[in-house]
Amino acid sequence: MTDAEPRRQPARSETGDPLLLTPGPLTTSKSVKQAMVHDLGSRDEAFVALNRQALERLPEIVHGEGRYVAVPMQGSGTFAVEAMLTTFTPRDGVVLVLVNGAYGQRARRILDIARRAAIVHETAEDTPPDLAEVERILVATPAVTHVFAVHCETTSGILNPIEAIAAIVARQGRRLLIDAMSAFGALPLDSRTTPFDAVAASANKCLEGVPGLGFVVCRREALAETEGRATTLTLDLHDQHRALEKTGQYRFTPPIHVIVAFHQALEEFSHEGGVPGRGGRYAGNARVLIEGMRALGFRTLLPDALQAPIIVTFRTPDHPNFVFQRFYDGLKARGYVIYPGKLTVADSFRIGCIGRLDADHMRGALEAVRETLAEMDVDLTPR
Amino acid sequence: MTDAEPRRQPARSETGDPLLLTPGPLTTSKSVKQAMVHDLGSRDEAFVALNRQALERLPEIVHGEGRYVAVPMQGSGTFAVEAMLTTFTPRDGVVLVLVNGAYGQRARRILDIARRAAIVHETAEDTPPDLAEVERILVATPAVTHVFAVHCETTSGILNPIEAIAAIVARQGRRLLIDAMSAFGALPLDSRTTPFDAVAASANKCLEGVPGLGFVVCRREALAETEGRATTLTLDLHDQHRALEKTGQYRFTPPIHVIVAFHQALEEFSHEGGVPGRGGRYAGNARVLIEGMRALGFRTLLPDALQAPIIVTFRTPDHPNFVFQRFYDGLKARGYVIYPGKLTVADSFRIGCIGRLDADHMRGALEAVRETLAEMDVDLTPR
Ligand SMILES: Cc1ncc(COP(=O)(O)O)c(C=O)c1O
Ligand SMILES: Cc1ncc(COP(=O)(O)O)c(C=O)c1O
Repeated sequence: MTDAEPRRQPARSETGDPLLLTPGPLTTSKSVKQAMVHDLGSRDEAFVALNRQALERLPEIVHGEGRYVAVPMQGSGTFAVEAMLTTFTPRDGVVLVLVNGAYGQRARRILDIARRAAIVHETAEDTPPDLAEVERILVATPAVTHVFAVHCETTSGILNPIEAIAAIVARQGRRLLIDAMSAFGALPLDSRTTPFDAVAASANKCLEGVPGLGFVVCRREALAETEGRATTLTLDLHDQHRALEKTGQYRFTPPIHVIVAFHQALEEFSHEGGVPGRGGRYAGNARVLIEGMRALGFRTLLPDALQAPIIVTFRTPDHPNFVFQRFYDGLKARGYVIYPGKLTVADSFRIGCIGRLDADHMRGALEAVRETLAEMDVDLTPR
Repeated sequence: MTDAEPRRQPARSETGDPLLLTPGPLTTSKSVKQAMVHDLGSRDEAFVALNRQALERLPEIVHGEGRYVAVPMQGSGTFAVEAMLTTFTPRDGVVLVLVNGAYGQRARRILDIARRAAIVHETAEDTPPDLAEVERILVATPAVTHVFAVHCETTSGILNPIEAIAAIVARQGRRLLIDAMSAFGALPLDSRTTPFDAVAASANKCLEGVPGLGFVVCRREALAETEGRATTLTLDLHDQHRALEKTGQYRFTPPIHVIVAFHQALEEFSHEGGVPGRGGRYAGNARVLIEGMRALGFRTLLPDALQAPIIVTFRTPDHPNFVFQRFYDGLKARGYVIYPGKLTVADSFRIGCIGRLDADHMRGALEAVRETLAEMDVDLTPR
């Protein structure tokens, strides 16, 4: 292909929109969005049944049927995380927060605002927590009641060793709270072998619903202990759960359209084969993306062993002609939306592998990267 | 029409759904819902522009251009109310809460949970606050910093005298916080003559968007004083406003689809002529409904002078054959969804006048009431 060759039409989703290679909002299926072109009453049996079905599926995703219950929390993922932290941590609790990115930092800020004591174990954004050190802190600090960890830290895309963390927390007799926002539904999390009290996630990441609804999958016995702990009415998971269990009704007007779309998204998740199917597709996307980008001369922040197949951080190339905004705009013009970096350790950008995207979309994105580099007169491959 | 005559097809909205004569979620236009059949990135300029346009319109609705700013808060209306109360009330503040229904009670509960001091002036659900008493309390209790009032108390449908309340609060040098959830956009609220620090409302009531987004229209100078007061990260209006003003971006993933639908709903609100147009249609709906129901022998809870044209509470008729569930089901089968009562003072049910409904829909609902009464063998008219 030469520069004179006519431009292709930009890539588009089923509904004619640019493809979102971002950590959310992301590209969803047309059928998920079309489920929203109806109004249902919140007491309507059809809605109540859809809602119940959707919620019942969530504990199954962590193999927690019976022992775990999903408590919905409208709002973005952060609302679910704040609801989890402020409902589960008692006023005199102490949380050990494992930080290696912005979402760990955010949890700590939430605890500070809620006036809950927090201890931080922080590692660099490309480094998992030091497990020996985590155990040492727990042994040395009996006051710690809870540990908070992020499954996939979307800041870098790093996969944190959640199973090993859970094992240490259990061995030391503490409780684990997980932010699995960007991992839930794609990366395995098995509550039978990875014990936790609660995991917060959202309809709009790997489950491919639209944004506006989070949820926390809670161990029933742990949730039952939380009465009166919450610092707000709206974010009180205990109160939310009690009302739903008693009446099947939400305490406040639910985001009906978002919930109906989530129900549809969960149907499509099941049809794809649940976690292995969904996670398999994303792993394929990540493989195509990483190999292709490396072939073009880009370098990933993380070694493959630490890379979750959710979102990939690439170092901004050290080339005089490479200007991120031009790169972003060139990809956007070709129908691909990527994401700026959020790192403090390195200049970078991110490309997501999640949402209604497959390997062909990733190959299309790579072609757009190739064209945009050519346009910018940037060649990153070694001569 | 005789009993043998074939049943009409049940009434349906533009998208084939039952008509929601409820206080929300309510019937919205097809175009509002269809705006959701797209995915946009949260940093997409198209989205950023739509979002800005929508937010800029809200202060205009209370004639607060320049002096007021709209801060969006995802979640239901209660999230906006809790955000308003917990952002504006300082830790050592004292709020006088005017209660004549469930939403006033809820505000008090929010303050209790947030550990903010509250004094309650409570009147019966069919009785506005005692204005002389309100002024007396303010005079006698200098510690009171804020007054909280509900514009239309949706519990009964009563219109509270918000202008008179605002005048007293201003005269006594205190700050007014308003829950105008069910009134905003339909009942006039003029910040030039009815001064307030903040008013909480939602996309999904009289503005006819879909649920999942609230907002608080804040007096800029008052909002600027609130830094560090909030009790949570997510519900902090000061932080939310600062981030939006600085970057045009939300702090957390916004409910894109709900916001895009809200933008469309606001376009339709403008086309209808804003508050006079929207409020006028609802007033017509309420008139047709009340006259028709009275002709059938029903009695409203409220005298006309206290009735807001939003939702009407009818006393459950004292007739041996009248069973609310059968009445509800009969109306539902005919395509009209009504709402159970929420009163403590009297057995009742409610019929809403808001949403994409006009006088013909109300006449259809009345015909469905007539048929359902006949089916139940209930005649309420005096012989
Ligand atoms: C790990 C993690 N936690 C929390 C969040 C916050 O989610 P939201 O932006 O929906 O509030 C994100 C968002 O990407 C995330 O990746
Ligand atoms: C006056 C008033 N305040 C608050 C609310 C709470 O709104 P939501 O159910 O959206 O949380 C409502 C809902 O009808 C209301 O009418």
